[in-house]
Amino acid sequence: MRAGVDALPPLPESLRDGAAIETPVAVVDLGVVRRNAEGAAAYAARHGLTWRPHVKTHKSLGIARIQLEAGARGLTVATAREAEVMAEVCDDLLFAYPPVSPRTLDRLLNLPERVRLAVALDSAECLQGLARAFSGAGRMARVVVEADVGLGRTGLGVPEEVVELARKVDSLPGVGFEGLLFYPGHIRLPAEEQDGPLEELAERVEELLEVLERVGLPPSTVSGGSSPTLWRSHEIPGLTEIRAGMCIYHDRDLVKLGVARDLSDCAYTVLSTVVSVPGPDRFVLDAGSKALSKEVLPSGGEGYGLMPERGGLLVSALSEEHAVVRVPPGSEMPRVGERLRVVPNHVCVSVNLQEGFVALDGEDWELWPVDARGRAGST
Amino acid sequence: MRAGVDALPPLPESLRDGAAIETPVAVVDLGVVRRNAEGAAAYAARHGLTWRPHVKTHKSLGIARIQLEAGARGLTVATAREAEVMAEVCDDLLFAYPPVSPRTLDRLLNLPERVRLAVALDSAECLQGLARAFSGAGRMARVVVEADVGLGRTGLGVPEEVVELARKVDSLPGVGFEGLLFYPGHIRLPAEEQDGPLEELAERVEELLEVLERVGLPPSTVSGGSSPTLWRSHEIPGLTEIRAGMCIYHDRDLVKLGVARDLSDCAYTVLSTVVSVPGPDRFVLDAGSKALSKEVLPSGGEGYGLMPERGGLLVSALSEEHAVVRVPPGSEMPRVGERLRVVPNHVCVSVNLQEGFVALDGEDWELWPVDARGRAGST
Repeated sequence: MRAGVDALPPLPESLRDGAAIETPVAVVDLGVVRRNAEGAAAYAARHGLTWRPHVKTHKSLGIARIQLEAGARGLTVATAREAEVMAEVCDDLLFAYPPVSPRTLDRLLNLPERVRLAVALDSAECLQGLARAFSGAGRMARVVVEADVGLGRTGLGVPEEVVELARKVDSLPGVGFEGLLFYPGHIRLPAEEQDGPLEELAERVEELLEVLERVGLPPSTVSGGSSPTLWRSHEIPGLTEIRAGMCIYHDRDLVKLGVARDLSDCAYTVLSTVVSVPGPDRFVLDAGSKALSKEVLPSGGEGYGLMPERGGLLVSALSEEHAVVRVPPGSEMPRVGERLRVVPNHVCVSVNLQEGFVALDGEDWELWPVDARGRAGST
Repeated sequence: MRAGVDALPPLPESLRDGAAIETPVAVVDLGVVRRNAEGAAAYAARHGLTWRPHVKTHKSLGIARIQLEAGARGLTVATAREAEVMAEVCDDLLFAYPPVSPRTLDRLLNLPERVRLAVALDSAECLQGLARAFSGAGRMARVVVEADVGLGRTGLGVPEEVVELARKVDSLPGVGFEGLLFYPGHIRLPAEEQDGPLEELAERVEELLEVLERVGLPPSTVSGGSSPTLWRSHEIPGLTEIRAGMCIYHDRDLVKLGVARDLSDCAYTVLSTVVSVPGPDRFVLDAGSKALSKEVLPSGGEGYGLMPERGGLLVSALSEEHAVVRVPPGSEMPRVGERLRVVPNHVCVSVNLQEGFVALDGEDWELWPVDARGRAGST
């Protein structure tokens, strides 16, 4: 892993300067974003897969445009707000979340008619509400039935239940059966150790495809894959699309998992200021848990963020507005006011804390909003 | 601990109903807020202490008003945004964070002249910037020097360094020496086990007061205390004010620590909807890490939130928009669409994720904004 100062492109002097912008502030390197987008799109094209990235990672119209230009076909969203915002740049949305609340259904119905909408769900209750709402409005939603393939979150674990729900979709007005969706979020091993879990996953998916074909409901769409399994998606039989979204930015976890090649693939960092050097053992940055989020590294390991510009030093402790960085004895200390970039453990939740970000393009930068953050609408 | 359905006041039917409001949404019981505010203010008054609550917990003008009406004297803030917003309702602010960035200093200088501002800092660099900015504008900031009393975050750990910085404050234009500030965030034991750590803290504070008096700089203000040590603050010698802020809402951690009496003291919950019941072993709520925040319980223990309405059941796993609740075999399952309240592990970071909240007053409710969320200003 390249962890040195060369791992990140240099920061323009204007962002090093405290007068230009306050910290903590997110910085997104658009050059790296474009490269990451092209990499995912090329992989998908090579294997005949649709790349329908989940926008939850960036929640930004500008970043979505880059994904679509690179070859993403459609976008995945999880909230009504994300759907409303992304409908501005995309006519083909997958709502990968059960729309249970009547007001959420209203908001989906209010999307522009040009938007082809697919909805993922796993219960008859949710399906009936969706069918009632869409048939009542003379609209049609495509439905992908969610299967659990081992994570134990949403999704039906018993193939016969998947079939039963698919048949119900097929029988109701306002909805049409589109296919199958799953999320193998339980497979988090480094690439070389994923063989066993991936084989199990392939078997489960094959079984689901068989039972659906047997009842005359072969899925048009089989939507699966995750960022950790991204580059092995073609090994899942019958898969037609991947939703990998984090690969647009990457983070410390994806570098550790080997999904990103190294830290130079991390497009998103939190620029922060050294606010205190109270002793020889530590310094304190202003990127606290309200900028980075205090999530432990899912793949294991200490720390709440990593500083490529300080040789891969870690954030040792995190309060709401403080990141404490403990240093080995004799370390060269930064000065109060110095600025450092932090690669977060989990990029999506850090993005969600920002109102906007510095969109950096070579030496130029401007502020872009995190357009689809929050819930807006009725609340 | 009361963990049953009686621990929370009942929710009005209009909030149980999916048509009235979308979830996840924060609900704040103003009756509990008033009781918590009166409790903290009464404790402070009884011991001759000023209660200057930290607003980072709620970031709300409405909640700040309740604190001030209950007897809070001044407010504590950590960001320029919090200072700007709270200046609307309060003339006496403590900026408990080193203002290092030139733009942060500009924003502090732009606060209304009627605001008496004290600033906490721990470095000559930060002090010089502050003094230069304030003297240049013909203004005056009071300064409290931050000492580290064991947490190892910001704050000078060597008494002689505290004295040296206090002397520097005393010698510069634009700033005046106000006193001492510390945060004993390392003391997190349940009340009955805090005797040893509290005695050590008392000794450290006494030493600091002695050295400051010896050089003719007796502090007017000694600002300390934390929510976990709240009810023992009077045992710290020389203390003049406490900043405890979390006690306005409480959370699962403060109930576990015994600072809140039980869950009925928790004013803040996240109202969420059951979006999936995919099997007999679990159900899934829509309050994910983008509503609750995925912080482990600092006092130890499983889970990412607690449901008083389900006998104290815990959130077992958290994704960005999903809370998975694993249930024992044979449990009565909720139905899809049912609404449940979740008490978060750490309330401040959950509040910071909300754009607004349901301010519940008996049977009535309205939406209040989280006014001071985010950074606004230049970013």
